[in-house]
Amino acid sequence: MQKKPAPPTEVAAVSKVAKAAQSTPATHLSLPSDSGGEGRVRAVIDAVLPAVDAGRFAIKCVAGDTVKITAHCFTDGHDVVRAMLRWSADAGDGARDWHEVPMKALVNDVWEASFAPPSIGRFVYTVAAWVDPFESWHHEMTRRIEPEDIRIASQVGAMDIIAAAARAQVADRDTLLRWAKALQTAALDADHNANALKALALDETLGELAGRYPDRRFETHYVAELPLFADRKRARFSSWYELFPRSASPEPGRHGTFKDVEARLPAIAEVGFDVLYFPPIHPIGRTQRKGKNNALVAGKDDVGSPWAIGAAEGGHKSILAELGTPDEFRQLVQKAAGLGMDIALDIAFQCAPDHPYVQSHPAWFRWRPDGTVQYAENPPKKYQDIYPFNFESDDWRAMWAELKSVFDHWIGEGVKIFRVDNPHTKAFPFWEWAIGEVKKEHPEVLFLAEAFTRPKVMHRLAKLGFSQSYTYFTWRNSKQELTEYFTELSTGPGSDYFRPNVWPNTPDILHEQLQGGEASLYMMRLVLAATLSANYGIYGPAYELRDHLPRNSGSEEYLDSEKYQLRTWNHDDAQSLAPFIARVNRIRHDNPALQADRSLRFLPVENDQLIAYAKESEDGSNVIVTVVNLDRYNVQSGWIGLDAASIGVEPGESFQMHDLLSNQRFIWQGEFHFVQLDPHAVPAHIFVVRRRSRTERDFDYFL
Amino acid sequence: MQKKPAPPTEVAAVSKVAKAAQSTPATHLSLPSDSGGEGRVRAVIDAVLPAVDAGRFAIKCVAGDTVKITAHCFTDGHDVVRAMLRWSADAGDGARDWHEVPMKALVNDVWEASFAPPSIGRFVYTVAAWVDPFESWHHEMTRRIEPEDIRIASQVGAMDIIAAAARAQVADRDTLLRWAKALQTAALDADHNANALKALALDETLGELAGRYPDRRFETHYVAELPLFADRKRARFSSWYELFPRSASPEPGRHGTFKDVEARLPAIAEVGFDVLYFPPIHPIGRTQRKGKNNALVAGKDDVGSPWAIGAAEGGHKSILAELGTPDEFRQLVQKAAGLGMDIALDIAFQCAPDHPYVQSHPAWFRWRPDGTVQYAENPPKKYQDIYPFNFESDDWRAMWAELKSVFDHWIGEGVKIFRVDNPHTKAFPFWEWAIGEVKKEHPEVLFLAEAFTRPKVMHRLAKLGFSQSYTYFTWRNSKQELTEYFTELSTGPGSDYFRPNVWPNTPDILHEQLQGGEASLYMMRLVLAATLSANYGIYGPAYELRDHLPRNSGSEEYLDSEKYQLRTWNHDDAQSLAPFIARVNRIRHDNPALQADRSLRFLPVENDQLIAYAKESEDGSNVIVTVVNLDRYNVQSGWIGLDAASIGVEPGESFQMHDLLSNQRFIWQGEFHFVQLDPHAVPAHIFVVRRRSRTERDFDYFL
Repeated sequence: MQKKPAPPTEVAAVSKVAKAAQSTPATHLSLPSDSGGEGRVRAVIDAVLPAVDAGRFAIKCVAGDTVKITAHCFTDGHDVVRAMLRWSADAGDGARDWHEVPMKALVNDVWEASFAPPSIGRFVYTVAAWVDPFESWHHEMTRRIEPEDIRIASQVGAMDIIAAAARAQVADRDTLLRWAKALQTAALDADHNANALKALALDETLGELAGRYPDRRFETHYVAELPLFADRKRARFSSWYELFPRSASPEPGRHGTFKDVEARLPAIAEVGFDVLYFPPIHPIGRTQRKGKNNALVAGKDDVGSPWAIGAAEGGHKSILAELGTPDEFRQLVQKAAGLGMDIALDIAFQCAPDHPYVQSHPAWFRWRPDGTVQYAENPPKKYQDIYPFNFESDDWRAMWAELKSVFDHWIGEGVKIFRVDNPHTKAFPFWEWAIGEVKKEHPEVLFLAEAFTRPKVMHRLAKLGFSQSYTYFTWRNSKQELTEYFTELSTGPGSDYFRPNVWPNTPDILHEQLQGGEASLYMMRLVLAATLSANYGIYGPAYELRDHLPRNSGSEEYLDSEKYQLRTWNHDDAQSLAPFIARVNRIRHDNPALQADRSLRFLPVENDQLIAYAKESEDGSNVIVTVVNLDRYNVQSGWIGLDAASIGVEPGESFQMHDLLSNQRFIWQGEFHFVQLDPHAVPAHIFVVRRRSRTERDFDYFL
Repeated sequence: MQKKPAPPTEVAAVSKVAKAAQSTPATHLSLPSDSGGEGRVRAVIDAVLPAVDAGRFAIKCVAGDTVKITAHCFTDGHDVVRAMLRWSADAGDGARDWHEVPMKALVNDVWEASFAPPSIGRFVYTVAAWVDPFESWHHEMTRRIEPEDIRIASQVGAMDIIAAAARAQVADRDTLLRWAKALQTAALDADHNANALKALALDETLGELAGRYPDRRFETHYVAELPLFADRKRARFSSWYELFPRSASPEPGRHGTFKDVEARLPAIAEVGFDVLYFPPIHPIGRTQRKGKNNALVAGKDDVGSPWAIGAAEGGHKSILAELGTPDEFRQLVQKAAGLGMDIALDIAFQCAPDHPYVQSHPAWFRWRPDGTVQYAENPPKKYQDIYPFNFESDDWRAMWAELKSVFDHWIGEGVKIFRVDNPHTKAFPFWEWAIGEVKKEHPEVLFLAEAFTRPKVMHRLAKLGFSQSYTYFTWRNSKQELTEYFTELSTGPGSDYFRPNVWPNTPDILHEQLQGGEASLYMMRLVLAATLSANYGIYGPAYELRDHLPRNSGSEEYLDSEKYQLRTWNHDDAQSLAPFIARVNRIRHDNPALQADRSLRFLPVENDQLIAYAKESEDGSNVIVTVVNLDRYNVQSGWIGLDAASIGVEPGESFQMHDLLSNQRFIWQGEFHFVQLDPHAVPAHIFVVRRRSRTERDFDYFL
């Protein structure tokens, strides 16, 4: 073996080869931008996931929920890498208060760790990794067999341990130094048994102690800090109920008021909704006001569309006098809060021609040579009563600031959820800015994007900051459509930032299927919405009372739509689905499996009219299996494939399926299970799985 | 209709709402970093593809080849977006010379355009998009029906056209202004026919002219410039032949020389190889020299392993005296170039214990307390004759510079391809820097990464700049393994940067299967390598002469391996596969379909012993279908599914399959086609498809 010619610290004389090397001045190496100018940074972090567009946008989660982060880490050669997940709150000022979680190596250079953001707001996470001299030595030592190798390796290790001691807390320093000394002494003692030496080197307790003080001088930092937004739980789990306050009056012909809505609050809370959402509550334009059923000319008593916002008496920060006063609104918000409900307001950034902005800020609109503004269109729909804002206005800064202040105003009135009307017809950079600014001050505020448009556009809005998004659910009716769409929603890349909020109906969409009006159909679509998606909503009372006539054949518009006129609803109707909906919402409330979307998986059933799927809580303790008969007319039956092992049941062991809708209980065993559903009774099962092998709660649980 | 209260240019008085807005000073909006501080930038570019790690690394292509770029572009509302692919050479100085290619909208907000880098070197590409007022107006006008709408819209359009005229070349200015004037005049003339006005507004020639001068003031630029490296064609299409020059002597026992190799060059070129690759040609260490068959102690005549680089007489820039002189090496490189061949050198950054670096740069090695250096290991392999470099050396800058200068030295000697030995046991940041620096000065230089290791590590090396990469091909033998692996290679994310170079054997790997030695097997594996991958190589003459005995049972090492001793080869052996290999290489040379990998698709055959796949040239004019019998012993037959339409043949029309190996011709028709292959004859078909409906060349083509 060649002996070392000079101590390693000595600087060697400039040799012929070193001279040749000087043609590329060693002090001017241009290193990759993410190396920090340090070439000895040998650990590689090839990816950190999840990440939305490489960290350009935030992933979304809920405060307190576990976020699982994976990284692809490795190094050259056979040295041992250690990796650390790092996360910090992000106040927006660049300051960081890093918390570290050791990552665990899984297979194939994939590492994993989790953290739970402790509060709502913005966070960042990233990964650090380093080639660990001590762990490398330790791993190497386990492979050493030759006594001479063990002796030399022990001396090397002793040096690493001395270095660890220098980094250690005072309490641990002596222990480490004693260990190093013992290794050195024994290694130099030719009489010392090599196996005993190896055992000393591999002492588990001491190894664990040294591992606490790693040498991280040449640590690699992942190229990016990835953003995360932690919302309050309602972002992930919410049950929405939309109503027109002006139709809340029990007396036909009288304009409804906030007081009328207040009287309805306990009933709505009873049905289990936790977000009560109102169409715009502002003064309604008189110029070009729409009449009943979207008539181009309004009668003198016509109330117009609430989305034609603004009149002489005020705009987006004012309340339509007929609904009540600001005091009454605030009182309503407080009463709702007392019942655990948010009031969500509809924010529609558009103006009736007589909105005050049109006078005070003409620069915010696009004027044509004839002195008019082109009204809003969403082909084939025409909104003659609405002017769009011009997002290319030279005065855009003032306009942005004013629009954002609309949110601020209503937040000041107690509102914490906004359903934003057609956000995809307003400039995208505005949303990123406005939502970002609002959430900086009010991280509890949620935004629902009402964009029924092309997939990439909807995804962009979610990336820009919208907390929840409307979906295509309304138009996904067959088993195949539902399976493909919800698989994409729950497992596609959007699952990191796009939270679906699914609606069987809206004031704009009475789907052709619902025009049938059968109770079985309304129950079926409601169960699908409420169990496929943790966030769902209905436009009521039209839904529970099965208002189902279209304005005309082939239209998705309601006949005598509340969008253009007052309606009166009979909440005491014996046919109302409210009790059924209450039962479904209660099941959602009681079962964590239904309060998130990631775990959704579809189960095989060889019958295209039966759809079955399972969801489970993060800890696996709560498993819900939903089966829905998609045929509104006929009894359907089939065999559902549910592997016992997949729900934590031993093969061969039986388990109980407790239908929380009917309160019936079934004993299942094996992999395939018979199910039959009669749409004339209840077209669905929502089973909770009760397992002998799990906690007692499984068997003690009653609806 | 509400009349405009003031001209749009007039600044409105500060109103109540505007005052409220001032609480968020409009001049201090904090915009997203990629907006350029301009809120009117309404076009969204959500993605530009391909991109490797969001542009952290370059995609790879070949100069002159078409690179297809897609982008996801859209805007708010219904305005029309235009998008432009932008590309520029990148000299590394930040200067850009942008070329623009208009992108075409496909479905679903996906846009596409192509460009062909005109020369080798580094390029960048990105995308710009903008909401186009003229195109938006034009699109709107096509939908206008009401005469009044047409008149107003014509006036609006005239203003856009006047604006375009101001941006136009002088020659076009008057045409545009005349058009605008005509539109304005006609629009204000109540007697003018509205349909005629609409026709004038939609004049195609004038519209196209105006479209040449778009208003790009509020253009969106994609967040990143994405890098691309354009190599010379050999990066994508190469046929490698590895030989040990020291075994090139025709006389048994005499050390081979460069002169001997020079004598072999015409024969090697005849067989169709275009890269001739040598294991290291440097002085070989004497300390710890290995004997025959990796014996730990060398005999006095043993020549040692060429990878034990360096001895008293020199290191990585020197030539082993027995091989010849630097002049003879340069002459060999030139002779090879004259035959269209590159000489590729093996660069192994490691040192024999008597390498001059060990004396002159002790700081580049990791010395142990006993004054020794731990020899290199690649468990379970041990390289007692090799010291690894210490990439955590304090003197790393000088070491990097010196190692890089090794490439520079051989480039100076005419070498343009380097096969890098075990790059994954050297620090990754070094490779990115060294390859980047070399390619800045010598973009024609190619690097092949010899890393047989875990997938993410191999991919990282390709990202860092290696032009080609060894693969797992050697260990992929069954139809399922080959199908899955090559589908991943040709369609997975790596296809943008990882160029496979597949080898049926190497001096280190005599796969168990090849130890059978049957000619059918060697032909089968060669056809697979040469047709599945545009880059392939063999270690010869061991391959064509079917050297197939392992050092011991269960080993992948050759018995009497050239790694440790001289060998003599009988190139005149009548059993040599050289003529067969020549035929396969000729087919590769003549058929562009086999010179790239992206088009690979596997064809169904209901026989697990038959594998079939098609490749086609970029323009579709050349289609090759390869069928291989994976059973070395038995005749196998089956029906291959090849849909006529997929190869540009009309349904029902027959086409000719010309087997370029046997020169047999078959007429196929319909979708399923019978094939039978006898391994005792030739175990493969390499069909070129000849179609009546295509060019005459299809039928005139003969081998």
